Amino acid sequence: MILLTSTRQLLSNAIYRNSRHANLNFPMRNLMSKQLVYCEFGDPLEVVKCRESIVPPLGKTDVLVRMLAAPVNPADINTIQGKYPVKVELPQIAGNEGVGIVEEVGKEVNGFSPGNKVIITRPVQGTWRDLAVFSKDMLRVVPDNLGVVEAATLTVNPCTAYRMLMDFVPVKDNSLVVIQNGANSACGQNVIQICKAWGVKTVNIVRNRPNIAELKKYLEDLGATYVLTEEELRSTKIFKEKQIEKPSLALNCVGGKSSAEVLRHLEHSGKMVTYGGMSREPVTIPTSAFIFKNISFHGFWMTAYNEVAGKAEKDKMMEDVIALMCEGKLKGPAHKMVKLDNYLEAIGNALTVKGFMECKYILSF
Amino acid sequence: MILLTSTRQLLSNAIYRNSRHANLNFPMRNLMSKQLVYCEFGDPLEVVKCRESIVPPLGKTDVLVRMLAAPVNPADINTIQGKYPVKVELPQIAGNEGVGIVEEVGKEVNGFSPGNKVIITRPVQGTWRDLAVFSKDMLRVVPDNLGVVEAATLTVNPCTAYRMLMDFVPVKDNSLVVIQNGANSACGQNVIQICKAWGVKTVNIVRNRPNIAELKKYLEDLGATYVLTEEELRSTKIFKEKQIEKPSLALNCVGGKSSAEVLRHLEHSGKMVTYGGMSREPVTIPTSAFIFKNISFHGFWMTAYNEVAGKAEKDKMMEDVIALMCEGKLKGPAHKMVKLDNYLEAIGNALTVKGFMECKYILSF
Repeated sequence: MILLTSTRQLLSNAIYRNSRHANLNFPMRNLMSKQLVYCEFGDPLEVVKCRESIVPPLGKTDVLVRMLAAPVNPADINTIQGKYPVKVELPQIAGNEGVGIVEEVGKEVNGFSPGNKVIITRPVQGTWRDLAVFSKDMLRVVPDNLGVVEAATLTVNPCTAYRMLMDFVPVKDNSLVVIQNGANSACGQNVIQICKAWGVKTVNIVRNRPNIAELKKYLEDLGATYVLTEEELRSTKIFKEKQIEKPSLALNCVGGKSSAEVLRHLEHSGKMVTYGGMSREPVTIPTSAFIFKNISFHGFWMTAYNEVAGKAEKDKMMEDVIALMCEGKLKGPAHKMVKLDNYLEAIGNALTVKGFMECKYILSF
Repeated sequence: MILLTSTRQLLSNAIYRNSRHANLNFPMRNLMSKQLVYCEFGDPLEVVKCRESIVPPLGKTDVLVRMLAAPVNPADINTIQGKYPVKVELPQIAGNEGVGIVEEVGKEVNGFSPGNKVIITRPVQGTWRDLAVFSKDMLRVVPDNLGVVEAATLTVNPCTAYRMLMDFVPVKDNSLVVIQNGANSACGQNVIQICKAWGVKTVNIVRNRPNIAELKKYLEDLGATYVLTEEELRSTKIFKEKQIEKPSLALNCVGGKSSAEVLRHLEHSGKMVTYGGMSREPVTIPTSAFIFKNISFHGFWMTAYNEVAGKAEKDKMMEDVIALMCEGKLKGPAHKMVKLDNYLEAIGNALTVKGFMECKYILSF
């Protein structure tokens, strides 16, 4: 492996040096990429294989990227299982987001230069590989000082949190209170930090667990105004005693009893946005919440957002999120870096709910 | 009773004739009004009493109205039971909508003349009485040729139907399909007719019953595109076989299994509006409907709408609804007229769900 990496690096360096004048096709054919591929849908521990493959020639509008890091997200796992409603052609390189360094650009590519740090902004591009050719339209240059973990995990959870806080209730402009369950999820941690940066108060609901005090401390340090267990929420007096206004926006990634309890505390005409269903139970809504409290219920899915949103709005989102990260106000998730060769550990972790909730595994290359 | 009515009529006629010049206070004090009053919340069959009361003096901005008809609505019953979230001061004259003829107007009232047909446009004004003084702001003149049943029942169900079809999905401008359960409810019948008048197709869900063929015929004659029982909806092929597009708007007044089944057939990004909960079961929504189908869920309550909507929008609504009625495109509900003295029959009917679903009882004076 070490020999191979070195060879690849030498070839890569040669291309880098000679990029402006070289006949790209010849050296590209000799570059090898190590990648995690699946040829059928199924148990990710079984169907995902590590293979080495020749890097294809660089097209006029393509960019060669040496990947630095790519997370293992729940959606990646569900996609491999064939349970995620996105179009995938087999065989498929796994992974939907990640960060890398530009090694080379096609003849007609502007705005990207070798050495640029870039993120992959569209799903199903196959980010679980060490060297990849992407169409330039799938990439975005990010500042050099943006952390690798932040950059690798930027497009899913921080952007989901940002959009849910922007698109349903004007919490930022009116300092309205946000309540969320699954507050220690990767997305939930982003919600806490973005709200803190905006001066928006959050009520954060988590499941009780042995190390609850530690978890509360962790989320409070991130900026959470209140952290309550589901049991504590049931009997809390923080709203009755006006310690905090009733929330106008609820973010739900759990469903079942948890969303029902969160709903009870929502302000008149509030909104609940569902972006996950960890409990595997539906959201249950009493008629009175609709009619007499005028609460409305919405869903959010980043993949669908990316299909329909305009470039200007997406650019603004990316700029805002990246600025928060570069200012140190929005940190990447609690995580563990795992070398590509140890991908089974990362996948195994993501297959358990505990994994989703507590520690993001990130592949490094 | 006959004697009393005659006396009242004589007095009333005297006022009518002399209205422009009379000292209104004197004759008004001698006018009697028969009214249905409750002094405590409880079982409407017990707490509602018929009483006669002196009609108070007519203020400068008041209008004396001889009532023609007033329906017994579910909300009237719930208000008397103390179960409806509207502010009521006891003792209270029951009834929230109705139609009458102007007998006399206060000195500063413009736009109303004796002989005008008027409807009561705001709730909790007490319409279950034969003669009433209302503030002019509670009234609206309607055309003489508007039917008494249509006028008496105009502000709740036709307006609810109109708003639900206007405010959530642009079904009219895009000829989108509407699906509704409880389609034979008073509101449901309005939905069918307004959609028919607009060229919008409807899929109408009703509970199975012995006279189902008769009910289907009745709703189809009103303009329903399809009428299906809940069982038929479960296995229908009308969407799969493209006999009709998938609905973009669902109107739900049932909840429970019925709303869950209706939801299954909604188009991507469709909306469900809940305005009732006949089954007394909550609305249950799988996470996938939120995330992958982007369906959103809303409530509608006419009482709340009236609090917040602007005059221009309300006027447009009234004009549209009244025009449809005067053109014969929007008929009043299947109903039974009941004399005020027989109010217990009307209340008793409204206390059963069957009553809500099949025949509206209307008090006549």
